[in-house]
Order: sequence, then C-alpha cells, then structure tokens
Amino acid sequence: MDAAQEAQKREAFRQAVVNTLERRLFYIPSFKIYRGVAGLYDYGPPGCAVKANVLAFWRQHFVREESMLEIDCPCVTPEIVLKASGHVEKFTDLMVKDEKTGTCYRADHLLKDYCKDKLEKDPNLSAEKAAELKHVLAVLDDLSPEELGAKIKGYGITAPDTKNALSDPYPFNLMFQTSIGPSGLSSGYMRPETAQGIFVNFKDLYYFNGNKLPFAAAQIGQAFRNEVLYAVILIDLLHEFVHLSIRGLALILLSALLHMPDNLLKKSSLQYSRSLPRQGLLRVREFTLAEIEHFVDPEDKSHPKFSEVSKLEFFMFPREDQVSGRQARRIQIGEAVSQGIVNNETLGYFIGRVYLFLTQLGIDKDRLRFRQHLANEMAHYAADCWDAEIECSYGWIECVGIADRSAYDLRAHTAMGEKEAMELKATLEANGEAEFHVCTLDKDVTIKKNMVSISKEKRKEHQRVFTPSVIEPSFGIGRIIYCLYEHSFYTRASKDGDEQLNVFRFPPLVAPIKCTVFPLVQNQQYEEVAKKIAKSLTAVGISYKIDITGTSIGKRYARTDELGVPFAITVDSTSSVTVRERDSKHQIRVNVEEVASLVKEVTDSTTTWADVQWKYPTHSS
Amino acid sequence: MDAAQEAQKREAFRQAVVNTLERRLFYIPSFKIYRGVAGLYDYGPPGCAVKANVLAFWRQHFVREESMLEIDCPCVTPEIVLKASGHVEKFTDLMVKDEKTGTCYRADHLLKDYCKDKLEKDPNLSAEKAAELKHVLAVLDDLSPEELGAKIKGYGITAPDTKNALSDPYPFNLMFQTSIGPSGLSSGYMRPETAQGIFVNFKDLYYFNGNKLPFAAAQIGQAFRNEVLYAVILIDLLHEFVHLSIRGLALILLSALLHMPDNLLKKSSLQYSRSLPRQGLLRVREFTLAEIEHFVDPEDKSHPKFSEVSKLEFFMFPREDQVSGRQARRIQIGEAVSQGIVNNETLGYFIGRVYLFLTQLGIDKDRLRFRQHLANEMAHYAADCWDAEIECSYGWIECVGIADRSAYDLRAHTAMGEKEAMELKATLEANGEAEFHVCTLDKDVTIKKNMVSISKEKRKEHQRVFTPSVIEPSFGIGRIIYCLYEHSFYTRASKDGDEQLNVFRFPPLVAPIKCTVFPLVQNQQYEEVAKKIAKSLTAVGISYKIDITGTSIGKRYARTDELGVPFAITVDSTSSVTVRERDSKHQIRVNVEEVASLVKEVTDSTTTWADVQWKYPTHSS
Repeated sequence: MDAAQEAQKREAFRQAVVNTLERRLFYIPSFKIYRGVAGLYDYGPPGCAVKANVLAFWRQHFVREESMLEIDCPCVTPEIVLKASGHVEKFTDLMVKDEKTGTCYRADHLLKDYCKDKLEKDPNLSAEKAAELKHVLAVLDDLSPEELGAKIKGYGITAPDTKNALSDPYPFNLMFQTSIGPSGLSSGYMRPETAQGIFVNFKDLYYFNGNKLPFAAAQIGQAFRNEVLYAVILIDLLHEFVHLSIRGLALILLSALLHMPDNLLKKSSLQYSRSLPRQGLLRVREFTLAEIEHFVDPEDKSHPKFSEVSKLEFFMFPREDQVSGRQARRIQIGEAVSQGIVNNETLGYFIGRVYLFLTQLGIDKDRLRFRQHLANEMAHYAADCWDAEIECSYGWIECVGIADRSAYDLRAHTAMGEKEAMELKATLEANGEAEFHVCTLDKDVTIKKNMVSISKEKRKEHQRVFTPSVIEPSFGIGRIIYCLYEHSFYTRASKDGDEQLNVFRFPPLVAPIKCTVFPLVQNQQYEEVAKKIAKSLTAVGISYKIDITGTSIGKRYARTDELGVPFAITVDSTSSVTVRERDSKHQIRVNVEEVASLVKEVTDSTTTWADVQWKYPTHSS
Repeated sequence: MDAAQEAQKREAFRQAVVNTLERRLFYIPSFKIYRGVAGLYDYGPPGCAVKANVLAFWRQHFVREESMLEIDCPCVTPEIVLKASGHVEKFTDLMVKDEKTGTCYRADHLLKDYCKDKLEKDPNLSAEKAAELKHVLAVLDDLSPEELGAKIKGYGITAPDTKNALSDPYPFNLMFQTSIGPSGLSSGYMRPETAQGIFVNFKDLYYFNGNKLPFAAAQIGQAFRNEVLYAVILIDLLHEFVHLSIRGLALILLSALLHMPDNLLKKSSLQYSRSLPRQGLLRVREFTLAEIEHFVDPEDKSHPKFSEVSKLEFFMFPREDQVSGRQARRIQIGEAVSQGIVNNETLGYFIGRVYLFLTQLGIDKDRLRFRQHLANEMAHYAADCWDAEIECSYGWIECVGIADRSAYDLRAHTAMGEKEAMELKATLEANGEAEFHVCTLDKDVTIKKNMVSISKEKRKEHQRVFTPSVIEPSFGIGRIIYCLYEHSFYTRASKDGDEQLNVFRFPPLVAPIKCTVFPLVQNQQYEEVAKKIAKSLTAVGISYKIDITGTSIGKRYARTDELGVPFAITVDSTSSVTVRERDSKHQIRVNVEEVASLVKEVTDSTTTWADVQWKYPTHSS
C-alpha cells in the first residue's frame, strides 16, 4: 500500500469512528442548532459517562495512590497572575490575515502545509530545494515573526480560501480575555491551564503537608485556549435547521445537498461534510485538563516507589534517537533512568505510572510512545520533558506532558518582593502614609504608618535553603479519550453477513454502561425478572440499561456493542438467564439470583471472563 | 436575647466556622498572594473532597436513580444562544456609581440597607414612615430603574464608603463577556447557567431517548456571574506578602496591624479582618451548578414514582401563607399536591427527592424549608416555582430552585423558523444564490440554488402535537456545601476543659476522609500494623490518612475531628486496635484483620455504630 492509499484508509477509518461517535451522541458539536462554533464540543450521554469514568480512574490511580492534595480553583483568573507566569506576554501564536477578507490563519500551519505539499506532490522538486524545505520543517518552531513572514512571502503563499495576499505575521494571544467586576478596569482571562492555581497556593499546601517535601498537588478542571482554527465549517449542521419542537405539522425540511466550492470542502459528499476541522476533536477551545505538580528537593529527586515501576518496558523515543533519525524503541524505564536517558527517578516514576494509566484505560501499548523534547522544544527553565504520544489517524498526538520544570513556577509568583516591601516601608517612614493598590477595589487605599509594620529579619536556620523543583505530569483528558475511541473501535460482519457492525471494545472500567438487560420477548414475566435483576445491579453499584423494545435480540446486541457495553443479560426464562460478553460473543447460563454479583466481579476485574466461562455452562444460541 | 445579641451570636458562630474552614484549607480565597479577587474561592484539599462526595452522591441520587441523560457542554457560549434565551437583554442588575470615585454598587442593595437600618435603628421613626419603608422592601424587586433612582435620591442615599453622590441606576449585564476566535468579531459569554446547553440539544436527546417523553437530562458544571460585590477587601491577605519560597534567610515580614477607616471595616481587630464580603462564600462569581431538565407532556405531569415520596413531611411555605404573614409549616408532599398547593406530581416528586438529597447530606431538616415563589418573583412563563431554602447565619438562603418552566425554553431556541427558511428559499429561487451568515467564519457564505433544497411538508400525524414542558431542579452546589458546613459544625470542651475544640459532624457520605490511622506511639511494630491496615483500607476503597507524628493521641483526634473524619483507628497493639467514633467518642476493640471491613460497613451505612458497639468490646481509655 502506498502513502496515498494509507492516508485514504486512515481517513476512512476516522470517518467510521467519528460517524459512530456523533450518531450515538458520544460527541455533539456545541450549539449546532445555531450553526456551531468551531472547536467546541459537548459530551453527550455516553461520552459524558466515559469522561466521568476516566476522571474517576485518574483520581484513584494518581491522587489517592500518592495521597496528593487535590484542589479546585476558578477558571476566571486576574491578569496579574498570568503576567507573572508569562502567559500574557508569551502565550501567543503567530497569525496572518487574508488582506481582503480579514480571515485569519496560523502562519506556521500555512508554511508547514506548503512545505509538506511540495515535498509530497511536486515531482520536479530539486534535491537542493527538497533539503531546504525539510530544513524549514525542522526549524519551524524556532522561526521569528520576521523569518516566518519572509518565508511566506518568498514562497508566494496566499490565503487558502481566496488566494488573496497575506499580512505579515503578528502575535495573537490565545487566552480568552474578559473583565472582572462592574468597573471594566480589572482585566482577567479564562485560565489556559490549571497549574497556576496550584503554584499560587504553594505556601498553604506546603503548610497543610506539615511543611514537608516531597508532596504533590493535583487539579482537574476546564482550561481555555482561543485557538486559531481552520475555517472549515460543519456544513452538515444545515440539517438541523428544522423546528426544535415536536409540533411537527408544518415541518420545515431544509436538507443540504452539499456541493461546496472545492477550496472549502474538497469532496462534495454528505459523508465528507461530517468531517471536522483540522485535528477536529483534538484541537479545541475549551477542554478538561488533569494536572499534577509534584514538589521535590532539587538535590534529591529519588522516588521511594520507583522500584514498583522500574521493570516496565515500553516504547521510548529519546532525544538522541530522534536527532540521529532512529526509531522509537522498547526500553525498561529503570534502564532509562540509570543510563541517564531520563533525568531522574521521580520523572521516571511518573512516566511509568502514566504508562500504566493509559494502557489500563485501553490505549494500545504498541501505539503509545514516550518522546523526549528536543532542546528547541523545551522551555529554557526545564530540566527534562517527555510527552506521552498516542498514534491515531491524525498521526502521533501529544496527550500527556511530563516535565521537570525545575524551580521556575514558584519563583515566578512572588507577590511582594523584598525590594517592593522595603520601598513601602521607606515611604511610610518618610510620609507617615502610602498608597497601596488593591486589585479587588480597582483603586489605591491609603495605608497609615501605624497600620502595618514591615521588618526584615535575618534568621539563622540550620536547614539548607532552596526553592523546590516541580515535576509536572499534565493530562489532556479529551485527547486521551479521543485516542481511546480510535484504539477501541472495530467492525465485524453481522450474523447474516449483510452488514458491518461497529464495536467499541472498552474495558469495563471505561465503558459508559456496564451491562444491559434484555427481556427476550415482550411479556410481563420476563419484564419482572428484568426489573428484579436491575434492582440487584443497582444494589451492587453496576450501571445498566434495560431495553424492553420488541426489537430482535441481534439488533439489541448490535446497538449496545456500538456503545461499548461489555456485558448483556438476556432474560429468556424466569429462573436463569444468558450472559453474553461483547467481544468474544460467548454466552453462559447463570441463575437469576447470581447474575448481578457475577457481572460485578467481571466488571471490577476480581474475576476474568475466562474463569467465568469455565465455571458456568455455555449457552448455545 | 434581643435581636442585636442574636445577630452578634450568629456573627460569632460564623466567624468560628469560617476561621476553621480557612485554617484547614476547606476554602482558600483565590489568588490571595496577589491580594485576592472578591467572589472567587479555591477549594483546598478537604473542601475539594467534600465537593467530589456531594457531586458523586448527586449523580447517584438523581442521574442514576432516574436514568437521566447526563451531558457536558462548554462554558464558552456564543452570543446568539444567550440572545435567544433572553440573557443578553435581561440578565442584568441595576447599579449606581459613586460620582467621584467610580466605585459601583447594587442600587437595590443600597436601598434595602437604608430601609432596614432606619427600621431597626431610628427610634423617632413615625408609624407612617415605617409603613412606607416596609412597603419599599416588599416591592423592591419590582421597581423600575427610574423608581429606584427616585427613591435613592429622595432618601438622600449616598455612597457608603465616601458619602459622595450617586449616579442614576443603570443596567449592568452580569455575564462575563469574551470574544471567540482571532478576528474579534464573534462575541461570546461565559455561561451564566448550564441549562441552555441542554435545551439546544433537546432534539438529539429526545432522539437518543427513542423519541419518548418524559425524560430528563442533567449537567454538572461551572457557571459564571460577574456579580457586583460590596467592596470589602480581605485585608488579612497582607499577611501573605512574604516570599513564597522557603529560602527564608532574608525573610520579609509584613504584618498588618489593622486600623482601617471605619467606613471600610467597622472593627479594627484582626479577627474581623477575616470576614468576607457581603454573603461571602454564598455570592461568588464562579460556581458549580448541577441542573436537571425534566421534559414532560404539558397535559400529563403525573409521575410514576410519586407514591415513593408522597408520605414525606417537611416544612413548606406556600405563597398564600407568605402573603398572609403566616409561618412555614410541616406538610406532607402528597397532601400539598392533592390540595393544589404544589402544581403537579412531577414537581412534587422532585421536591421530595431534593428533601431526601439535602437531609442525607447532613442538612438539618428543621432549618430547611421549601418556599413557593410569589407571583412577582416568578418568570412570566413559569407555572410554579419552589426554592429549597436553608437557614444559616446569613438567614434563609436559596440553595435549590425547582421550577415548572412550561415550554418557554424550548420555544426560545428555534434556530431557523419557517419564515426565515421560506425567505431563503424565495431568494434562492429569485437570484439563484443567497448569502448565508456562518457564525464560525465570521462571514457570509454564498449558497447556490443547487446546494440546498428547502421544502415545506404538510404531514398528517396521528399523534397529538405539542411542545414539552420543562421541570427544572437547579442546585447551587457551593451554597449547599457552605450551609452543610454551618449545620455540621459544633464545639466541645477538650478533656482538660482548657479549650473549645471544633468538630464537623459530617456523615461518612460527605466526610473528606473516612478514617485515620494512628500508631499510638512511634515504633516500628505499630507502624507496620498501621501500613497493613492502610493497605486493606485501600483494598476496600476507603480513603484514610495515616498520622505517624509523635503528637499526643488527644491532639491527633482533635485535628481530625476538625476535618470531620468520622472514624479513627488507633494502633495500640499488634493484634487488635481501638476504633473511635467522632461524635460519641465511644471506642471499641477490633482485631487487626477485621478493622477495614468494619470501617467499610459503618462508612457505607450497611451497619450502624450502635450495632457495632453492641457487637465489639468497649475500649476504656
């Protein structure tokens, strides 16, 4: 299969997954009855359940296992905090504008697309030119606005939609800006990450931990980035422009037979119209982050539990291997630390824990690698950084970043330094009072000399003095979930071979519903047994769905396979029932009284389906 | 005790609760190292755990019990959605500005404070004047901007801080505004409630439910309101202006000896400085909402499970009783529905379920009432509305609203009506093409005639045609949690009688940590037993905290009582241990092997402490 066929196959696979996800409401493009907003998605009922399961497991696997201090901070953040952290100045993308229509594009994306396109499709490209374009791709992230602008002009790159000329690149801050309070004077942003909320509370958390290091704090929450997205619209949304009510008598049908201009949508089929903007569900404007800040003595980054993960072996892609053009290779994390490939034990410990987290969720270990940041990718203050990358139809996607950020973040937040305090003291002594700006009031308050005392104390301390280092594992929950969908999806022929049926092979841990209850035929006796089983499932805490429609049992299985429900209980007698496992389709007979506790055991993985099959009689359908 | 003494007592109680909450990091004023932002709070580790427990119970009690469709929508919302819902036009407060300093105040708050103050403190007030002021208080919510302005001018009300003159009242929209995408042309807001995300998805959710009514959808998430807060600053934050790092050698001490001007802070003590803005933790700018939208046939609002709650009796405060000056009284919810006090069974069912939810969390049933909205409080489209109000030191606080909103919300969101669609059709037929505005692109797209087909179909349907009604229970999670803190807090004398110790009597369901493990003295044997117990607690899923400091056992008990930890295991031998219950302080002896499962049983309430006491020998300390 050549590259083009590969790409087509990947595209077809993605379409199948995304169509299933949208049809079964795992995702819904947000506000689609109003024609949608690019980069915003709702989690529908099954997606919402999957997300809750992933977050519950994250809490158990990280927060509880390590006794982390979990906190929960607001999204609205005053400007002063994000100035200190560097986000106001540096959290920008370089953009160019279509000089006639004003449409905006990411400058680096246009240049990248140009280079890739030339390299892939231009048969007359000279070796020299090819080398140049490859070099541009390699240094893309390091180009200054001027260099980027010069390349765009030099290659004659124009706006993709209109072929109009483009403006010079200019920085666009990716934070959503807003204003706090009624005066309009107090500027704020929606946080672009949750970490800053932890850093500004470091002192209190350190105290809460008995003034001892190391300790970790954690936060799960929404973050916001006003991404510059390719202007591809979800054109199928036109279908939604019908009356929302079910009054129905004068139903307006507005169906879109889509023949959009080529430069907007390259295909004209309805199916293609379902496609999503560049990296669709992976590049969004609001998303859930789960972040850990592990504070540690910079001179002792050993970890007491490192031995618990040190034997784990998985794909790693060290910096040296990337630079010298080698492939990712399987390395034991213990080896990686002892050889100095990974900077320290604590970083290695978290890499190991992240590997366990992702694979237990159902991420395929052969499409997961830990890639070390190159020198030019890494922030200047970072000691080492590894991304957990997952391969999906979009390529290798960064889903978790695990960085040793040294002491940068804590040093950034020093609300009033020695200098400022001493100046305040001097003013108070000279004038008897001083102006003191209070953000909350949007105004200066006059402080009199007798209100405060400021002193500088020299303390002799017996302990060594240092600023803690921070190891930060940061999880993009939405990206992990999307990759999990792709890794879990497969199709298989229906019984009669007429159609391909979709299945998500979610582990019970992740599955939105753990089991279904189907009365085989519609009769009162069976429905009562079903209700009895439902009650006992609730009692043991297993989520379920009853389907009492008269639809054929095969169709009901197919419907729930598509939601990734691992077990189905079919009520086909009043004393015993059939339990079917989703992927093997094996069926066993179990007593009505036993079935709930059996499903609980296989769901909690205290027993395996293989054991269960051995213990109970097989049902031959 | 007279009213002033009562008020003082309430204030002292609140200070004790809030001091404990802040000292133990249940709450942290957000960004306090940067002098804070009024109306924003972090949940510290124990608060975050309490919140997670409350939300988990909400999911179990409502979402799972009723098989609701839970969804999760973004906070960033395009303007068009909030225009349709009426928020852009109507979600406003009337404000007045200090004409010299520009400080803003809620106009109704100033008028309310003036009236209350006069009524309480002016001994020379004539009966006629008193009646007038009482009337103003009664109609406060109905006053137009002009009427409000006239009253403020008429009574000579000035800015509380400066006594400067005030501007005329003007509307201030309470939504945080922002801009979506790089062009700056697409206006958006941070959602002020989560409900709209459900309404715009009604059609999909209805389809997901097999096109059947009734069904309910639910959402938990952040909401944002740019409240106009009284400008009282958290002056104790000055204490925080020390270096954040623990380098420590040149420590800056900036202690605030607070003698603030009377009009800013009425007391000069440090303790008072810890007080919070008006209604402190209850009136915040970002908060977690949990909302249910139950869609139902407007002509059949019966509920199949109503009989399960109909015998519940609790305090209700019907409209008639409020108007005629009577008190809230205990009514059976079944009676309330059959007498027509509550509009319908579905509304009554949710009132009953909310009662069970709140009391199971630990809200005192004698300080909980369901108050019916007066005619002037209720939106014009609502059929009936009841607030679950909880009494705390701030008075009766609305924590849950349970409204029958009839068909308003679904009718509001009709993306393209018949008229608009027919106009588009006419334009296409006349010109062969038409402009079509796409929000996402910030521009008009030209649609050609052959791209779409628009038709109007008359369908004969056998079913009756209607727009569903919506019953909406909406929970302010932060307010419920704050009231829960007040209802759970008490103090008791220490053993030696020297000091008052703080206790939170959280039920295990809510408690941030379920149990503590204390080796009685520091020795290796005991610590190993403690670790063994810890492991078995993890195995049964019970959260715990080990405290191996050599602190006296009494102090360790006091510390965890203050966090509301219900059970403590003291390791005082290698074979059996002491288990202590927090409120009774009763202690029993249990074998090391049994203790984890015992704690699980009392935590899950599958057995009671009374039963446990009867079964195991008492430990006499």
